[in-house]
Amino acid sequence: MSTPVVEFDVITLFPGMLTGFFSESMIGRARTAGLIRAEAHNLRDFTTDRWHITDDRPFGGGAGMVMKPEPLARAIDSLRRPGTTVIYLTPDGEPFSTPLAREFAQIPHLLMVSGHYEGIDERIRETRIDREVSIGDYVLTNGTLAAAVLIDAISRQVPGVLGEEKSLTQDSFHHSLLGFPQYTRPVEFEGRAVPEVLLSGNHGEIERWRHSRQLEKTRQRRPDILSKTIQPS
Amino acid sequence: MSTPVVEFDVITLFPGMLTGFFSESMIGRARTAGLIRAEAHNLRDFTTDRWHITDDRPFGGGAGMVMKPEPLARAIDSLRRPGTTVIYLTPDGEPFSTPLAREFAQIPHLLMVSGHYEGIDERIRETRIDREVSIGDYVLTNGTLAAAVLIDAISRQVPGVLGEEKSLTQDSFHHSLLGFPQYTRPVEFEGRAVPEVLLSGNHGEIERWRHSRQLEKTRQRRPDILSKTIQPS
Repeated sequence: MSTPVVEFDVITLFPGMLTGFFSESMIGRARTAGLIRAEAHNLRDFTTDRWHITDDRPFGGGAGMVMKPEPLARAIDSLRRPGTTVIYLTPDGEPFSTPLAREFAQIPHLLMVSGHYEGIDERIRETRIDREVSIGDYVLTNGTLAAAVLIDAISRQVPGVLGEEKSLTQDSFHHSLLGFPQYTRPVEFEGRAVPEVLLSGNHGEIERWRHSRQLEKTRQRRPDILSKTIQPS
Repeated sequence: MSTPVVEFDVITLFPGMLTGFFSESMIGRARTAGLIRAEAHNLRDFTTDRWHITDDRPFGGGAGMVMKPEPLARAIDSLRRPGTTVIYLTPDGEPFSTPLAREFAQIPHLLMVSGHYEGIDERIRETRIDREVSIGDYVLTNGTLAAAVLIDAISRQVPGVLGEEKSLTQDSFHHSLLGFPQYTRPVEFEGRAVPEVLLSGNHGEIERWRHSRQLEKTRQRRPDILSKTIQPS
């Protein structure tokens, strides 16, 4: 088996959250094919105390717990190597996007740190984290699902992973526009027919219809995306 | 066991992706406590043909496959009941956010449809879907991870789910600001000391320091959030 194009390691308190994700669907196939490597590591394995403590109360008070620096430092130091980018998943981070997924797919080893509780000690962020990334403006129990989201979106950018199943070129955001309506058989479903243009065989017409629907939907739902578009194709 | 506050059903081609997520951490505990119900349903169980076909080629051409309307209609119709909100996870959808999580936490039954390939037949969107939601401006292999993200963020809003572990009040986005730096023991880590103010015991000072760090970070990293803030607290 050849060397994986991208290797993912996730440091988490809940490695079991990723078991199903790592074995099913596209990620399962890409791992089996050796195109990517993805592994979860239990932070508790990097503690040295008898009770495997990974969190403690925050200095300055406040609700919740903060993840202690030592086990995280030990975990990161044991898993990173030259060329590794260490990513911390946090709502404070840089918003994740398709361009960022493309950028990360060029990095051979991504080491992801999943926070939990009130987050990780700031000194780990200062000394060990290369990139802070947010998957959206909402709060999750811990960063493990966010790590899975990154692994999925980044793996799609690795050559060979999508295979025949799916072309990247039609993805939403590939051209900074939302997708067009899709129809498959039957031609009529509950009295609703497929738009005639799609049955016409006229590829120019179909292309124009789809593009106009994309523009219309993007204008209605996400004018913020449209304003960022430099060259609508 | 009392009636769950919110019930989640997910229609997916990959129910196994959710197994770990449903049993670990906060979601696992909330399910055991009967505060929420969460279940994945295999779309293939709602096919009627011998080969359990759920997808077909798109009318009008193009790469990839589209999910057929009939199995989705059957799955949705068999799982929804009065008061159900049917959510389709799609990059075209309304951006997910903490306010949306709060809104959804008021709905007793959320039925989530995970798309795959090039998405689902438009006629299902027209006839069966109440809300279309996107977890971010990136593309995933299928909506199942997105459904998990919604379930996590929504469950946090259900009374009793967070328990003692975590207070919502300090979450990023609760006050439309990013979080403040957190520190826990030891006081010194690799020569880096915890900021003195946090050891001062002066709660007014601590509050001011944290708020100013939040403002500073939000200004640097996410001026877009700051401009949306009406009343910074």
